[in-house]
Amino acid sequence: MPEIRHNIITREWVIIATERAKRPEQFAKPNVRRAPVERFVATCPLCPGNEDKTPPETYRVPRSSDGGWQVRVVPNKFSALDAKGDLVRKAEGLKRTITGVGIHEVIIETPEHNKTLALLTEAEMELVMATYRQRYNAVTLDSRVAHVTLFKNHGERAGTSLEHPHSQLVGTPIIPPQVRDRMEHALRFYDETGDCIFCATLADELVDDVRIVAQSNDFVAFIPYAALTPFHLWVFPLRHSATFLEATEAEMADLSRLLRKVLRKIYFALDNPDFNLSLRTPPREACGLKYFHWYLSIIPRVTRVAGFEIGSGMFINTALPEQSAEFLRHAPTDPS
Amino acid sequence: MPEIRHNIITREWVIIATERAKRPEQFAKPNVRRAPVERFVATCPLCPGNEDKTPPETYRVPRSSDGGWQVRVVPNKFSALDAKGDLVRKAEGLKRTITGVGIHEVIIETPEHNKTLALLTEAEMELVMATYRQRYNAVTLDSRVAHVTLFKNHGERAGTSLEHPHSQLVGTPIIPPQVRDRMEHALRFYDETGDCIFCATLADELVDDVRIVAQSNDFVAFIPYAALTPFHLWVFPLRHSATFLEATEAEMADLSRLLRKVLRKIYFALDNPDFNLSLRTPPREACGLKYFHWYLSIIPRVTRVAGFEIGSGMFINTALPEQSAEFLRHAPTDPS
Repeated sequence: MPEIRHNIITREWVIIATERAKRPEQFAKPNVRRAPVERFVATCPLCPGNEDKTPPETYRVPRSSDGGWQVRVVPNKFSALDAKGDLVRKAEGLKRTITGVGIHEVIIETPEHNKTLALLTEAEMELVMATYRQRYNAVTLDSRVAHVTLFKNHGERAGTSLEHPHSQLVGTPIIPPQVRDRMEHALRFYDETGDCIFCATLADELVDDVRIVAQSNDFVAFIPYAALTPFHLWVFPLRHSATFLEATEAEMADLSRLLRKVLRKIYFALDNPDFNLSLRTPPREACGLKYFHWYLSIIPRVTRVAGFEIGSGMFINTALPEQSAEFLRHAPTDPS
Repeated sequence: MPEIRHNIITREWVIIATERAKRPEQFAKPNVRRAPVERFVATCPLCPGNEDKTPPETYRVPRSSDGGWQVRVVPNKFSALDAKGDLVRKAEGLKRTITGVGIHEVIIETPEHNKTLALLTEAEMELVMATYRQRYNAVTLDSRVAHVTLFKNHGERAGTSLEHPHSQLVGTPIIPPQVRDRMEHALRFYDETGDCIFCATLADELVDDVRIVAQSNDFVAFIPYAALTPFHLWVFPLRHSATFLEATEAEMADLSRLLRKVLRKIYFALDNPDFNLSLRTPPREACGLKYFHWYLSIIPRVTRVAGFEIGSGMFINTALPEQSAEFLRHAPTDPS
């Protein structure tokens, strides 16, 4: 009998379609997209040597040995938002509009074209995470920016055509309604129970101990009870903290190691699937809030969002979260 | 300067990325998926002659000439929900679960494998719409069904691998939170203004007259002011009616003609793109409500949902809704 499960944090209901469920390894498939072979590609605008093909950089982690760089951040050449101009709101009858001002940056994770987050060394991963935080902090200081979305699209099914490993950051002049709705919901839970809804969920996951994929000193990676899709994975900080800005240096290093471990499991066990990663952290003003909690979300794109999801906002997951978790828990972090 | 637009009905904000906008015709592309050539395919479980490869049918529109059928409805062989069994809710700490009971049907739109909705005759389209309504009505009478989602996935990017033209219907034992949230929002709007939020939006669209794609006696097809994606299209009944069940026979015939016209425009102007269609109609108990309004939504899958959308719930649309509408308004309904 299939089961419909509730995600208490997002309020989403998910049909866990046990009757049509596949075994975890069936989601791995020979990747149609061939992983790039060349370490540097002359025509790639994000490769070293082509720095003049991007807008002037806003940040870099230099490489002392030869004056090159290890991580580089540039405005998106095809920015969705305009970095200049004033924030103006307009209302005309039912239509509300805001000028599209904001920040849209590309974080080039490594000079090497044929790497991906999962293949970085621990030290390299730490640099990427530190850059995430540096940019998140810098961009939220722009008075026009109300919220920052930090994400990575890996592979064509995840929405990118650019091979060179990169993440993106979008600072919007509004707080997305979905974020605000979840904050409201978490606030109500806190008022009614005295608990952070994220902390309470994580405590439950640790007791249940059947959906944990990996755990470190400061973080837990797990498949949510009502995972939207196979291998949909959350990484929560164990210590209550509302925003990404509040993570300590030690926690950042710990997160880098755990995230690398999880990404390597996905990379090797599912054959380098396309995936989206996103940092879910509320607006800067949320620092210190007792009822909200930042986290990372990873969605391997092994299935398609179709009409049912579009027409209802619900999801059908063809994998049992406990099985997905067990599979990834035992997955290797190195090539077999 | 890009613009961030608000959809007053869904509360979604959409970045209209004018700087990276493409011209409407740039979204048309030679279809990688080749349209099927054969009228009947021996191995297709939905083709005539293979009726024993599907579960026993729940409905058919017979063809009197030869005892065959024109439209056929069968339970989904890989049903996401179980048609038998009781509705049981369970709560264990923070975890809430409902037994996965419900109805999952496949509506086979035509016996001909190589057709698609856009290529049906007017009379055939009317039969499909009448079947939608017959099944919607029948399934909502099941006491375990709280809500029906009726949708079509056309093409692989839209989530189907089955070529034979078909739609699907899922009757779930819960009302999706997204549907409930929108109803709540519409109720508040009604209480504050005395208007149905859908009727008010439609009235605005008719006055603006720049996003209308096609109009008939009883329906209007338009690109929403804050369209989520290029060619995201809504079809609203002009007369206020809360649910699909309330449409009159004349309105059903009128809808069939208009929907066919719109689908043909999309088919010929955008080169048979993959798309999702969904019927957005509230639960049966909403019949007669003054504040809610049913409609159809069509989303051609010419772009990808990526990390920004997943991480924020917001959308970036790389087409100007007014331009998309103008393009489709002038698009042919027959091959050029």
